[in-house]
Amino acid sequence: MKHEKLDAETTKQHLHGMEGWVLADDGLSIWKAFRFKSFIEAFGFMSESALAAEKLGHHPEWFNVYNKVDVTLTTHDAKGLTELDFKLAAKMDTAAAGRMPDHIK
Amino acid sequence: MKHEKLDAETTKQHLHGMEGWVLADDGLSIWKAFRFKSFIEAFGFMSESALAAEKLGHHPEWFNVYNKVDVTLTTHDAKGLTELDFKLAAKMDTAAAGRMPDHIK
Repeated sequence: MKHEKLDAETTKQHLHGMEGWVLADDGLSIWKAFRFKSFIEAFGFMSESALAAEKLGHHPEWFNVYNKVDVTLTTHDAKGLTELDFKLAAKMDTAAAGRMPDHIK
Repeated sequence: MKHEKLDAETTKQHLHGMEGWVLADDGLSIWKAFRFKSFIEAFGFMSESALAAEKLGHHPEWFNVYNKVDVTLTTHDAKGLTELDFKLAAKMDTAAAGRMPDHIK
């Protein structure tokens, strides 16, 4: 069930309660730019997210350079967004919340 | 000294002894596609590389999705390649060598 592709309305409802996540133009993925105060903070976030991802059995596409982590979430099997993407997004937001973001100094 | 931009000849000598690293067309960065057998192996490689990077004070630009890690190295301060890039590349090769790559199964 949880691997079913979400319809546009359900996707919109999920996104409504989340901060910083942007729906791709094609509606098939969500994206967020995380910023931290250092590489250590950024990689700490990635480590915590990696554990959550492995536990969910669902993994991010992500790019890191120094304090920046750009994350894209999608469910390849479903060719779009599923509940798994929003579960992982929530875990990543929690992982980031415990770390000082770049703009709060 | 070690932050000085390397000339083309020195860069070529460094690359000669390394496997899988490709010089960008503009000569300003090197790139390698690492492949592992799972996300756990890939993220294990990233964790070991992150520690090496923090120790060197020099960080990669990298993209990960599941078992794939694409790495770009350059020294922004020098606007090109320096000894630091090849030191980090060697550390990352060592980190990968201890893990089963995707093509050896």
